[in-house]
Amino acid sequence: MSPLTPTPADKFTFGLWTVGWQGRDPFGDATRPALDPVETVEKLAALGAYGVTFHDDDLIPFGSSDAEREAIVKRFAAALESTGLRVPMATTNLFNHPVFKDGAFTANDRDVRRYALRKTIRNIDLAVELGATVYVAWGGREGAEHGASKDVRTALDRLKEAFDLLGDYVVEQGYDLRFAIEPKPNEPRGDILLPTIGHALAFIERLERPELVGVNPEVGHEQMAGLNFPHGIAQALWAGKLFHIDLNGQSGIKYDQDFRFGAGDLRQAFWLVDLLESAGYQGPRHFDFKPPRTEDFDGVWASAAGCMRNYLLLKERALAFRADPEVQAALLAARLEQLALPTAEDGLAALLADRTAFEDFDVTTAAERGMAFERLDQLALEHLLGAR
Amino acid sequence: MSPLTPTPADKFTFGLWTVGWQGRDPFGDATRPALDPVETVEKLAALGAYGVTFHDDDLIPFGSSDAEREAIVKRFAAALESTGLRVPMATTNLFNHPVFKDGAFTANDRDVRRYALRKTIRNIDLAVELGATVYVAWGGREGAEHGASKDVRTALDRLKEAFDLLGDYVVEQGYDLRFAIEPKPNEPRGDILLPTIGHALAFIERLERPELVGVNPEVGHEQMAGLNFPHGIAQALWAGKLFHIDLNGQSGIKYDQDFRFGAGDLRQAFWLVDLLESAGYQGPRHFDFKPPRTEDFDGVWASAAGCMRNYLLLKERALAFRADPEVQAALLAARLEQLALPTAEDGLAALLADRTAFEDFDVTTAAERGMAFERLDQLALEHLLGAR
Amino acid sequence: MSPLTPTPADKFTFGLWTVGWQGRDPFGDATRPALDPVETVEKLAALGAYGVTFHDDDLIPFGSSDAEREAIVKRFAAALESTGLRVPMATTNLFNHPVFKDGAFTANDRDVRRYALRKTIRNIDLAVELGATVYVAWGGREGAEHGASKDVRTALDRLKEAFDLLGDYVVEQGYDLRFAIEPKPNEPRGDILLPTIGHALAFIERLERPELVGVNPEVGHEQMAGLNFPHGIAQALWAGKLFHIDLNGQSGIKYDQDFRFGAGDLRQAFWLVDLLESAGYQGPRHFDFKPPRTEDFDGVWASAAGCMRNYLLLKERALAFRADPEVQAALLAARLEQLALPTAEDGLAALLADRTAFEDFDVTTAAERGMAFERLDQLALEHLLGAR
Amino acid sequence: MSPLTPTPADKFTFGLWTVGWQGRDPFGDATRPALDPVETVEKLAALGAYGVTFHDDDLIPFGSSDAEREAIVKRFAAALESTGLRVPMATTNLFNHPVFKDGAFTANDRDVRRYALRKTIRNIDLAVELGATVYVAWGGREGAEHGASKDVRTALDRLKEAFDLLGDYVVEQGYDLRFAIEPKPNEPRGDILLPTIGHALAFIERLERPELVGVNPEVGHEQMAGLNFPHGIAQALWAGKLFHIDLNGQSGIKYDQDFRFGAGDLRQAFWLVDLLESAGYQGPRHFDFKPPRTEDFDGVWASAAGCMRNYLLLKERALAFRADPEVQAALLAARLEQLALPTAEDGLAALLADRTAFEDFDVTTAAERGMAFERLDQLALEHLLGAR
Repeated sequence: MSPLTPTPADKFTFGLWTVGWQGRDPFGDATRPALDPVETVEKLAALGAYGVTFHDDDLIPFGSSDAEREAIVKRFAAALESTGLRVPMATTNLFNHPVFKDGAFTANDRDVRRYALRKTIRNIDLAVELGATVYVAWGGREGAEHGASKDVRTALDRLKEAFDLLGDYVVEQGYDLRFAIEPKPNEPRGDILLPTIGHALAFIERLERPELVGVNPEVGHEQMAGLNFPHGIAQALWAGKLFHIDLNGQSGIKYDQDFRFGAGDLRQAFWLVDLLESAGYQGPRHFDFKPPRTEDFDGVWASAAGCMRNYLLLKERALAFRADPEVQAALLAARLEQLALPTAEDGLAALLADRTAFEDFDVTTAAERGMAFERLDQLALEHLLGAR
Repeated sequence: MSPLTPTPADKFTFGLWTVGWQGRDPFGDATRPALDPVETVEKLAALGAYGVTFHDDDLIPFGSSDAEREAIVKRFAAALESTGLRVPMATTNLFNHPVFKDGAFTANDRDVRRYALRKTIRNIDLAVELGATVYVAWGGREGAEHGASKDVRTALDRLKEAFDLLGDYVVEQGYDLRFAIEPKPNEPRGDILLPTIGHALAFIERLERPELVGVNPEVGHEQMAGLNFPHGIAQALWAGKLFHIDLNGQSGIKYDQDFRFGAGDLRQAFWLVDLLESAGYQGPRHFDFKPPRTEDFDGVWASAAGCMRNYLLLKERALAFRADPEVQAALLAARLEQLALPTAEDGLAALLADRTAFEDFDVTTAAERGMAFERLDQLALEHLLGAR
Repeated sequence: MSPLTPTPADKFTFGLWTVGWQGRDPFGDATRPALDPVETVEKLAALGAYGVTFHDDDLIPFGSSDAEREAIVKRFAAALESTGLRVPMATTNLFNHPVFKDGAFTANDRDVRRYALRKTIRNIDLAVELGATVYVAWGGREGAEHGASKDVRTALDRLKEAFDLLGDYVVEQGYDLRFAIEPKPNEPRGDILLPTIGHALAFIERLERPELVGVNPEVGHEQMAGLNFPHGIAQALWAGKLFHIDLNGQSGIKYDQDFRFGAGDLRQAFWLVDLLESAGYQGPRHFDFKPPRTEDFDGVWASAAGCMRNYLLLKERALAFRADPEVQAALLAARLEQLALPTAEDGLAALLADRTAFEDFDVTTAAERGMAFERLDQLALEHLLGAR
Repeated sequence: MSPLTPTPADKFTFGLWTVGWQGRDPFGDATRPALDPVETVEKLAALGAYGVTFHDDDLIPFGSSDAEREAIVKRFAAALESTGLRVPMATTNLFNHPVFKDGAFTANDRDVRRYALRKTIRNIDLAVELGATVYVAWGGREGAEHGASKDVRTALDRLKEAFDLLGDYVVEQGYDLRFAIEPKPNEPRGDILLPTIGHALAFIERLERPELVGVNPEVGHEQMAGLNFPHGIAQALWAGKLFHIDLNGQSGIKYDQDFRFGAGDLRQAFWLVDLLESAGYQGPRHFDFKPPRTEDFDGVWASAAGCMRNYLLLKERALAFRADPEVQAALLAARLEQLALPTAEDGLAALLADRTAFEDFDVTTAAERGMAFERLDQLALEHLLGAR
């Protein structure tokens, strides 16, 4: 089989809400009918995906009775069973219902916060039942449009309280489940709490059980703040906190576009795949995208297939780039191997005593050395273009 | 004296490089001559400032001999002595000289990294000698324009190594000095490491001596990523890491503008002052701005005076806002006092057992409650406009 | 009556869809019920507004029968009659229905384009019947997310064809109606045609009847591209093309926020009001905003009242700024009066012959003159803050 | 010879200031020595370029005597002669000298405006002497950071006056020279007049000789406002106003990066080349880039060569895309051919009389048609990646 044909070994996963997005946007009604989750499972399996993920309300319509819920879950589990599709992750919808208009874990109203926690816990049980080991938390409504409407320090206390309670719960239940916080700078709130990978990583360190919590960065969310996504992923990996990842496309700083992976900033997509593959990231490659509302279902499935194919194409390009002897020479010329050396493996005292480090350092001559980065970058671009 | 006249008690400080900026930009030559640091000290003292700060090269031109250096420092110290101006903070210039074109602590070239550390340590000694207790580190050149030119995980290793060594140094010397990392998303590098407050806070947690290191956020730097500055400051305060702050103005996502404080996003400036004052922030109010290159020295000093006056005006407005009984009623109507209550002070088990929290929660009725935020925000705006 | 109490003489107008927005956003359901247009008319009249505007589908639900339509219009007209509220402008909804998912006047499908024209013409008749003299055209769906899906030159041909046909129609009918194109850079399309005021102004010049078409700029739309809104309005006025204006608030480059006027970039709001008032703009001050979905109807009306009050407050501040003798002296110091002089009223030959203009011009001395802009801007800021 | 080896027939041109950029940026000194223009000419010719362009001060240092000027021009012309390199375009430096700190054609100071006109006219003579037929005008300092410092309507009067005078001059001299205005939204001014292609196109229509003036759009400048560059070029072509073009790379909304062509937004670069080639654009492909300051001269020339190679690679990909039968089928499926049809070639009356256009149009069924754009876009992406 072609290396460009996806198989479960590639660990591609999709949210029910992605291919199932009906195309409602701030200025327009739905352009597609609802998609049956079981049909989604069957179709994704046929396309070569590894798994499927869901918000509680994607699978079980909000307000379903217990009996309805049970029937839905049973039917969904049977589809998973028959297709072999996995559920590596699940999450909670804490943003769609009007009750969450001012947030969930940080809503000013205490009863809303309590309800949000219970809604989350309920779906954690289901997630674990279906085999998930990661539970994503996107706090899309935790934020503000007004300077006085949210005391941010207090809101962070509430957010910490929520994650501490959820940590208690999974520990008490003995669940093998870790949390992944998904940052986003804005939309639907004017400013959202934990707006970037960095803010989420920092927040996690103040939790009671930081080891249970990592991040689930999304390509477009970081790019909505103009940030370099591969750089953010590198810092998450460096911190040991890349628990999950959301792949999609975005064209710069504007509304959240959720294009298929590969669309949007193609060069960052290339460096991202290069990083994930070279860092040995083992988790799912999860596509959190929205097939444009111009498309019918043929377009939806073409878009989903494109996500996977683009990942595999970029992986092929990245591996060829790293294997190319000219690239390896260019990396040497750019002194990447020196970056890997400690700056002062001999310690502070030796550094202070080393006159070549300062007093006798020929700063002018050193400044004249070119870094040879353009040559290296051109090689990368030509690999990306399939021109080498 | 009018509360709008700055005094040292207001703790306003300025960098030598701010009023001393000569107006060289990417497309134009200097429009103003160099300013003598001693003249700056005298002028700032006359305007009511509390202190002055500097990069090593601001005070002592790069390449000065030891004798020149000594004479300069002596003369500067005398000016401080005679005016009473303090030096609460100092920092290192690790960006201007061509030798730092690929970074300082994370330059690919190991000898550049060693030189950068020694240059920093040398100025730490001077900073402490002049009384500084905070040492700012802006890694403006630690970054990349090319995807392969910097292995970010390795670069973070080097950055950690640098801060660990600097921590060793101040501890061994017994200095009463803490570090404050200044994040910035880009410019002069395409992407800079530790691009936001969040990334810096997260990085600090992986250092050997995290207690020695905090952040020095700058208004414009966060706004260059479209982030809400007061929200970022709130998270830094929440983490106990607001060691210093750089105040200036920026008009949205574009090049680094460094307007005087109050110019740019006026509403965020208001909420920032409201936060700093209500949180009891005790550090200097440090202006890191650049008087536009259209100005002569009259304009420079008008700009510096404007920074301080605008802070005091906004402080006056913020105090009036918080003291207004209508505002207090509006905060109650917006249920801010509920946000201050724990969500589940009764613990997880009680929450799980509470049927009113979920099973019997009337989500429809709860969703109908308005948050009354527009009324509150309009009150804030009218206070800002001096219209109440 | 206080100058801060709105009256019809202030010409404040509101779209039915503004206060009537139900709060549906890309991630959440409606938080408010529908608002009866007649109730809106009555409420706006009570608040001091001058007029109300509408999209066809705001007033007459899509798919209504002719009889329903007639009844609705009759009832609406009666409410206008009884309240005295005017309808100075109307517009067409060419974006909400799924049929417009690829655009209206530039949809690839020819039948959709023909339908869009007929839908527009039908509402033009109603607009004129209700007294409108301006017809706004926001082509929110005229755009693309894919590079090959729209040949932009051909699409501009179609867009020109549409406006030429509409021009034919109003001329043939003898209507006293002019068109105002509303630019927007993106959202809901990845990129929208005629993305800024400039692009719309340029497009208009290629129409068969350019005199019939002007622009309807919206504060937030230009700011979504990081552009200075008052600058754009100045160019529209300079071109004689400011036929209408949409006032609201936006916090920088992100999704379309539609805050109440005064929220968002307050300083640009101040300069905008200063410009509109000093330029003698005679058209309606039309608020195209969305009361945040956190609000109930009390909040909706507080938000609408805030729009008007903020305009009046800023007008008061702007008039005081212009009347202040210190400001007038500062404008002189900044040589604004020299900008008003022709550069070469003596013509080209005289300029070429004038040795003081070049050969004998002392460029060094001229370069040393400060522009005194910081002093001027500080005066403006203090007027805005009500501090003078 | 490989189609990827540049030859003069490709019409690649470079500014002296591009490869000659010394690497001075807002935070750092020059990293490279000055480059002799004659060496540049020889090197560019050897690399396969067609031409070279210049600002007056690039070639003749500001303040040179007439004799120095003459000698420089003579030597430069000889290098052109011996290499065969052409000078298709020249421009004026109206931004570097401090005298232009408040602008040139729109400076508040009238004498500065007169000086700017004379400086421009002087270089127009040289440009024509060296064979240029396009004269670019980038008004980088025509703008403001302060709301009251520039009356924009009056400034546009001055800008019109300047272009009208320059038009008089070339007509009176009988020069075969047209002007190309280069828009930019900001940097080095907070906001620049004529910030986008659209604003420039609109401005041109108000000139006395609009036929003499077109635009010179630059990739990065439009992208600094988040605009789609190929869309802007399409509108310029549609208006008959694409007189020249500046090719480079930019990574989103931030400071002006001037990367080599192909770096930055690769997908827009692809669509741009597709558009220029399919529209039959005949002008030079002018690279206005800055080799990063990390590079020595080897890197500078690698960067210049990369610009040309990337254009040729993208051209190869674009031609293959258009020639692919699957793409042609996909374009049909996306109904591009319907967009090329008039919407109402039968005229207004026929449209109004056509019941199938409105009364009998089955809007629901029409809305269900998918646009098949994802399939088309995936084909484009695979062509770009060299994967088909």
